[in-house]
Amino acid sequence: MTEGLSSAPRPGTTPLTERSSRVAVARKLTRRAGREKAGAFLAEGAQAVREALAAHAAGQVRVREVFATDQPRHAELAELARAGSVPVRYVTERAAASLSETVTPQGVVAVCDLPGTTVDEALADRPPLVAVLVGVADPGNAGTVVRVADAAGAGAVLFAGDTVDAYNGKAVRASTGSVFHLPVARDRDVAEVLAACRRAGLRLVGADGRAAGDLDTADRDGELDAPTAWVFGGEAHGLPEHVRAELDAALRVPLYGRAESLNLATAAAVCLYASARAHHRATGG
Amino acid sequence: MTEGLSSAPRPGTTPLTERSSRVAVARKLTRRAGREKAGAFLAEGAQAVREALAAHAAGQVRVREVFATDQPRHAELAELARAGSVPVRYVTERAAASLSETVTPQGVVAVCDLPGTTVDEALADRPPLVAVLVGVADPGNAGTVVRVADAAGAGAVLFAGDTVDAYNGKAVRASTGSVFHLPVARDRDVAEVLAACRRAGLRLVGADGRAAGDLDTADRDGELDAPTAWVFGGEAHGLPEHVRAELDAALRVPLYGRAESLNLATAAAVCLYASARAHHRATGG
Repeated sequence: MTEGLSSAPRPGTTPLTERSSRVAVARKLTRRAGREKAGAFLAEGAQAVREALAAHAAGQVRVREVFATDQPRHAELAELARAGSVPVRYVTERAAASLSETVTPQGVVAVCDLPGTTVDEALADRPPLVAVLVGVADPGNAGTVVRVADAAGAGAVLFAGDTVDAYNGKAVRASTGSVFHLPVARDRDVAEVLAACRRAGLRLVGADGRAAGDLDTADRDGELDAPTAWVFGGEAHGLPEHVRAELDAALRVPLYGRAESLNLATAAAVCLYASARAHHRATGG
Repeated sequence: MTEGLSSAPRPGTTPLTERSSRVAVARKLTRRAGREKAGAFLAEGAQAVREALAAHAAGQVRVREVFATDQPRHAELAELARAGSVPVRYVTERAAASLSETVTPQGVVAVCDLPGTTVDEALADRPPLVAVLVGVADPGNAGTVVRVADAAGAGAVLFAGDTVDAYNGKAVRASTGSVFHLPVARDRDVAEVLAACRRAGLRLVGADGRAAGDLDTADRDGELDAPTAWVFGGEAHGLPEHVRAELDAALRVPLYGRAESLNLATAAAVCLYASARAHHRATGG
């Protein structure tokens, strides 16, 4: 039997340590360059691994292998992996922690193929609601927006320009599985991403705290009924001027109290849900 | 001249180190027990200190002192402090970092009186929109909800039961100054907090992913037009049964995609903004 390879982690199998070559190879996926070279990324924690294996079973993402510590709580995931012919590698707590980017690792990590979806592929079905991130630096924020976009029924999330990698471990974790639910595509060329949205019949609406128009008024006026790509800027500086110049409209979330702004994820939640509500109202859904 | 005391930090003044007694006393405020004993809390970072000094100038919060490193960027804050007769203590980078709960401290911290607002005081003006947190454990989440509540125009945020301290450093920071904008009150007795809301004419509506009714339907049916206290549960388990039993209604944020849930802050944003929109619609605002 190959070292550490078993159909399910179980006592008696010698666990792989953080110094084993398999674990060292997987650890390179905690860096963007390593992910791009290997064409793979890590999904960490029980929920993300479960979603990865479900996507694998549905033929949407290939899971290459799962690393898990010898814990009874991982038995169900090992079973799911086995059902999909995904090898499960039994590892030490320390080896699992070396693949983790969280303070309290759960001891289970899946190695998944990077989807490599292009922007045009992500928009092929002409979804009526899309989120575009431009220059979002924080992986937790980016992953949370993927989760919110999924919840609001968006058909794709596009990572444009200097936005953090969607397959960064913290971004995957913050998405709580949503990165496996809807197409996520990246293109450094922001103008090309916006042009692709336009070709897909989407109206380009930027979330901009300095905009003259506000979300609730636009909603009442039926402005959100059209298929919409919401464009969100980075945490520090919002949308750059060359992006704002390309938009069909810019809207601010109204601030009814004394807060100066909302953070990216909460603003995205309010904007995307306003569009979802408008679309469901328009279709009587 | 007293050691480290100056009207503004300036080169030539001997900075207080992390071993000085003033800094050691302030450091106790990074713990809840220390805050309660001293009746004070720390507001960290340029934005929070600016908001603290504005609240001090308005007579809403008393700022006892400001600790700042010798950086030109703190000159404006030192000026504001001086205008309010607040002493500025010049400290080393390390001393400032010892008062900080962030990875990259900004080198400026204000010591503020704990407001000690009671739940009944927070509701005295009978605000039409209030947020209640029950058992929220993460200070970043709690602070973000305070910010969202402020943005949506809520009149108070109530920390009930085992909810984290609103004056935890991370909560204050996540609120980005909103903790100084609206009354924040705490009571461990959840039933008493809910009863106080009812006495203040508020309808108790819980955000509950398992509820039968959904937010958008309730909004269309005018259910959100009434004065509302939104009740939000903890990240892990939501609202406990004994709290749900006390509510007038429970609503879920509709999930249009495949996400299993929203996180606390984004769910709170969608719920509080739905109420704000309904109230402004009802009043023609």
